[in-house]
Amino acid sequence: MTDNKIHIFDTTLRDGEQVPGCKLNTKEKVELALKLEELGVDIIEAGFPISSPGDFTSVNEISKIIKNASVCGLTRAVQKDIEVAAEALKYAVRPRIHTGIGTSDLHIKAKFNSTREDILRRAIQCVKWAKNFVDDVEFYAEDAGRTGNEYLARVVEAVIKAGATVVNIPDTTGYCLPHQYGEKIAYLVNNVPNIDKAIISCHCHNDLGLATANSIAGIINGARQIECTINGLGERAGNTSLEEVVMIIKQHKDMGFYTNINAKQLNPLSQLVAETMRMPVQCNKAIVGSNAFSHSSGIHQDGFLKDALTYEIINPAEVGAEESKIVLTARSGRSALAHRFQKLGYQFDRNDIDVLYQEFLLIADGKKEVMKEDLESLAKAHTKELAV
Amino acid sequence: MTDNKIHIFDTTLRDGEQVPGCKLNTKEKVELALKLEELGVDIIEAGFPISSPGDFTSVNEISKIIKNASVCGLTRAVQKDIEVAAEALKYAVRPRIHTGIGTSDLHIKAKFNSTREDILRRAIQCVKWAKNFVDDVEFYAEDAGRTGNEYLARVVEAVIKAGATVVNIPDTTGYCLPHQYGEKIAYLVNNVPNIDKAIISCHCHNDLGLATANSIAGIINGARQIECTINGLGERAGNTSLEEVVMIIKQHKDMGFYTNINAKQLNPLSQLVAETMRMPVQCNKAIVGSNAFSHSSGIHQDGFLKDALTYEIINPAEVGAEESKIVLTARSGRSALAHRFQKLGYQFDRNDIDVLYQEFLLIADGKKEVMKEDLESLAKAHTKELAV
Repeated sequence: MTDNKIHIFDTTLRDGEQVPGCKLNTKEKVELALKLEELGVDIIEAGFPISSPGDFTSVNEISKIIKNASVCGLTRAVQKDIEVAAEALKYAVRPRIHTGIGTSDLHIKAKFNSTREDILRRAIQCVKWAKNFVDDVEFYAEDAGRTGNEYLARVVEAVIKAGATVVNIPDTTGYCLPHQYGEKIAYLVNNVPNIDKAIISCHCHNDLGLATANSIAGIINGARQIECTINGLGERAGNTSLEEVVMIIKQHKDMGFYTNINAKQLNPLSQLVAETMRMPVQCNKAIVGSNAFSHSSGIHQDGFLKDALTYEIINPAEVGAEESKIVLTARSGRSALAHRFQKLGYQFDRNDIDVLYQEFLLIADGKKEVMKEDLESLAKAHTKELAV
Repeated sequence: MTDNKIHIFDTTLRDGEQVPGCKLNTKEKVELALKLEELGVDIIEAGFPISSPGDFTSVNEISKIIKNASVCGLTRAVQKDIEVAAEALKYAVRPRIHTGIGTSDLHIKAKFNSTREDILRRAIQCVKWAKNFVDDVEFYAEDAGRTGNEYLARVVEAVIKAGATVVNIPDTTGYCLPHQYGEKIAYLVNNVPNIDKAIISCHCHNDLGLATANSIAGIINGARQIECTINGLGERAGNTSLEEVVMIIKQHKDMGFYTNINAKQLNPLSQLVAETMRMPVQCNKAIVGSNAFSHSSGIHQDGFLKDALTYEIINPAEVGAEESKIVLTARSGRSALAHRFQKLGYQFDRNDIDVLYQEFLLIADGKKEVMKEDLESLAKAHTKELAV
């Protein structure tokens, strides 16, 4: 079943860390790297060593301490970048150099003022340089999402021939629709003769809210690595959310894929990353948002209390979150109210609940959430009435 | 081209408002409804009238003031709910009642302790009740995402025969993969004989981060209405984000769809909703996050400064956001630094920038963002050195 393992390539410390406000010092980076290894990620992209002396040191220190995961450093297709990355990675048990160049016509012209032939040559060259230092070389074809498939296939074939072990097909601007990204991966699988010698990687951005869906379309069509970040952090609207792709693979076992991730650590690590990187997660974020397992409407609460599966596909304990919450608001119904009274030690029959529910609604219309104290006063007033 | 219009059904005031902490009073609901109408949504789901006296009043007041959009009220498949909704909607220019029932075996058994035949009967019945009050009746088949397609098609055919103008196919628990949800819609298009008499609607939840992709798969396969909320607010991990589906339709014109939304209002309205409903949007949220148009890595900043299109598929002005930001951090490169110096009135040549860049990195490694003041001191010190 090795064939169906999806390698999780975490780039929280590189694509996530380059976000305004997210910068980490070496100590913080090392701490998070250890947590990522504990989570079970296969590859930790630790930084971009040539970008600054601080980042070089961070990659270097992470390389020393990580034992199971591969440690990866980013470079441009520039000899000096690759030499510096190799130096930063020299203590790593499993070092990987991630090098590459833009392949879309827009990048070739606007960024490099170059030609397709020249870019192809530089792509091969950078992989060869990296191969002088490490066995495991990942090549990225930047803006592959907007690169014509035929040329992209030529580049991919050439870099695999030059020694690339992983070929990364980034949707750099987050433009692709899922079926388009899936078709791109399928095209490479079907048209690159030596594709079996490398792993195809998905690196999707979330500018249109499609990064997760695109990554899943990628693996369905033959990719076996997903590049992602905790909480979907990253440049602009961010990268693919690690927690989302991992849980999709876990929930949809019929796809036949698996990962090495220990899902129970998803929520604790999400919170640690949010705090350390100063990037709060919104309440309605999938899997790790504070409301991800809160039920508030009466219809949902009633169904949930009868059978959690009616409104919940993931047991919160499975992802290390607190148990599902039944929050009482003006949209709650009688069954949630009865349930909460019961939890507080009050046993009311159906008629009592009918009366109490009307009083409850008057309170609820005036506030965001009805708290335990409100219920206690309601219950006591009602019990007193009954006693009279 | 009427056929390819995607109707935007906004449920911020219903599915969004039922979230813990999001409750609005009538004044706030009316204000937001007016903004939604200005944004160009086709249908405003204003509330669940029977849920509380406050919500009844809100739907009633919104009905009085909205002139162009349809105003919709939610109900269960219960006669009293429908009567109360009709009463709340009585002043609406275009009233719609949204009624329905759970159709998955899990809902039929666990929630209703009932049978498929009985649920089918109740589905027909509720549409007929609603038809006594309004022409425009939308039927929801709750948990359609986990309902067998054959039975779902029977229900859909029956409710259309009973008068439903819109049939809503909710992925209530956010479980479907995009191709699965798309296939479900295609199945209905191909197997419900009277499907041309109603509009198919997508109502997707984001528990696995796939609501947007599922909605797009829905319209590609024949649906013509998307139910969504501003900022993706909603029960648990929320609903489909209005801003995401609207911009996907706009960016991917090749799909041939259009909406009536004035995209320039997306960012201002996102902010207003976040404040009024006390639900901050995370920085890396697509389209409306504060970082959605921030470029921070050196590679991206360099490309962006040469041609914005290299890293940006949407011009921020198009969605009413501030212009793209070039934030200086330790991951920035020489071109972004030169650009910022130029904006501050300093003209340095390449050699100057090389020297300044090394000094800049030392500052940048120690802080999250390098500010204008830091650059001023750097520039002044450097100019002084030159003068000596």
